[in-house]
Amino acid sequence: MKLVRFGQAGAEKPGIVDADGVIRDVSGHVADWRAGTLDRQTLARIAAVDAKSLPAAPSGVRIGSCVSRPGNFVAVGLNFADHAAETGAAIPEEPILFNKAPNCVVGPNDDVMIPKGSTKLDWEVELAIVIGETALYVSEEDAMNYVAGFCICNDVSERAFQIERSGQWMKGKGSPTFGPLGPWLVTPDEIADIQNVAMWLEIDGQKVQNGSSKTMIFGVKHLVSYISQFMQLDAGDVITTGTPPGVGLGMKPPRFLKAGETMTVGIEGLGVQKQKVVPFSG
Amino acid sequence: MKLVRFGQAGAEKPGIVDADGVIRDVSGHVADWRAGTLDRQTLARIAAVDAKSLPAAPSGVRIGSCVSRPGNFVAVGLNFADHAAETGAAIPEEPILFNKAPNCVVGPNDDVMIPKGSTKLDWEVELAIVIGETALYVSEEDAMNYVAGFCICNDVSERAFQIERSGQWMKGKGSPTFGPLGPWLVTPDEIADIQNVAMWLEIDGQKVQNGSSKTMIFGVKHLVSYISQFMQLDAGDVITTGTPPGVGLGMKPPRFLKAGETMTVGIEGLGVQKQKVVPFSG
Repeated sequence: MKLVRFGQAGAEKPGIVDADGVIRDVSGHVADWRAGTLDRQTLARIAAVDAKSLPAAPSGVRIGSCVSRPGNFVAVGLNFADHAAETGAAIPEEPILFNKAPNCVVGPNDDVMIPKGSTKLDWEVELAIVIGETALYVSEEDAMNYVAGFCICNDVSERAFQIERSGQWMKGKGSPTFGPLGPWLVTPDEIADIQNVAMWLEIDGQKVQNGSSKTMIFGVKHLVSYISQFMQLDAGDVITTGTPPGVGLGMKPPRFLKAGETMTVGIEGLGVQKQKVVPFSG
Repeated sequence: MKLVRFGQAGAEKPGIVDADGVIRDVSGHVADWRAGTLDRQTLARIAAVDAKSLPAAPSGVRIGSCVSRPGNFVAVGLNFADHAAETGAAIPEEPILFNKAPNCVVGPNDDVMIPKGSTKLDWEVELAIVIGETALYVSEEDAMNYVAGFCICNDVSERAFQIERSGQWMKGKGSPTFGPLGPWLVTPDEIADIQNVAMWLEIDGQKVQNGSSKTMIFGVKHLVSYISQFMQLDAGDVITTGTPPGVGLGMKPPRFLKAGETMTVGIEGLGVQKQKVVPFSG
């Protein structure tokens, strides 16, 4: 099943995508895609509904983030062997974790704003995990029981904020619009092998990232289990699992985003995002 | 005004503390202390209510965290000159920020659980700032307009998770019960000088931390302004501002918490917390 949220920002309705790619409104069955509606039981109930019997969403409607604002937004750093090599970093012995501000989540095709004072705005195509049920001290074997599904996350990053401003990485990871999620939250049954999906990102049509979840150092099951040893993961929480090679920081010379450029972000089976880079406003 | 939340965990009611120290139930006026009720206008409206006309809370009722679960829980590291010296770290040039998991918040007198696998559980008395209104790109001069008030936070930390498990600090900062907040959220008008309040922590009656907000490297106004350059702070978000000397990690030899010990945590004008350390259960 492909879960989607559509409509104006802040007033999105929950939907599912039918076999013909039409968004169907499920707001008669669930209030939103968030904690309390992402558990296995609710998803099975929705999967049993005849999609064609549901109202179609207006054609061309805005797509929101595929889950409403998470309670926690955990990110994994340097989790691709080939990306770690690109940055000159050693392969981490354990997953490196940091946080993105939960309120940086936006729709997959919303504009990405350049923060005030930004000089080094960068992109990262990532596979995100959305938690379906409370997970604490979960084993790797059981981990998938706690996963509602997967989506694309562009882990937008400001490298000067992240690296040159003292201390921890989260400073460069949480500015408004730094977390496009979607277009769909895809349930695990739709993906043959989540550790073997193509991942790519283009800037104005030029492919800059071209990788695969195959080169992840720590896979999805390990990450859910590992993180659940340090904190409780709640339904609706998001874990974004790191990026393959090809970020701007790794280029020689480094290349950063400019207003007017467009990022197109894709993962096999999870759809495509498209964001225009714009000056800060708001 | 002293804001408080009382009742069973997960079903707390909002209250205020009257001139005689009695908790008065304000649930007839606001639904909870959280985003949407911490703004200046709402707090002025509640301050105008005759406290003695409100129902008294049951004597001996449990006190919950003084705000409901925050959207973001930001922490500042090494922010006291004397604590930085104690850990052997250099004075940071800019505030060091990391995140605590928002769901680690508990009441001020709830038990603190030792996480599974923990060997180095530590304490940190901290002054926490609770945000009252959305703050983004706020100046230091305007910062206090966005602050609903102050409370005590025990920034409970697992030092092995924080320091010995690769990467960023957040691994040791977010286990369940690692964020006691309260007993009260005290509005700024009640504190003569927030940069000159005594802060202390006792283990089983022995004073281990004995400091003052005077030795903060970066003060409250600077922190609110600074953090708002990197992310949007929303109403109900919590910033905990770092700890004075005397943590277990800094002792020679280091000393860590054991089941059965009790932490008593105080800040001048903000009340006292008391937590028993217990094995993990749940």
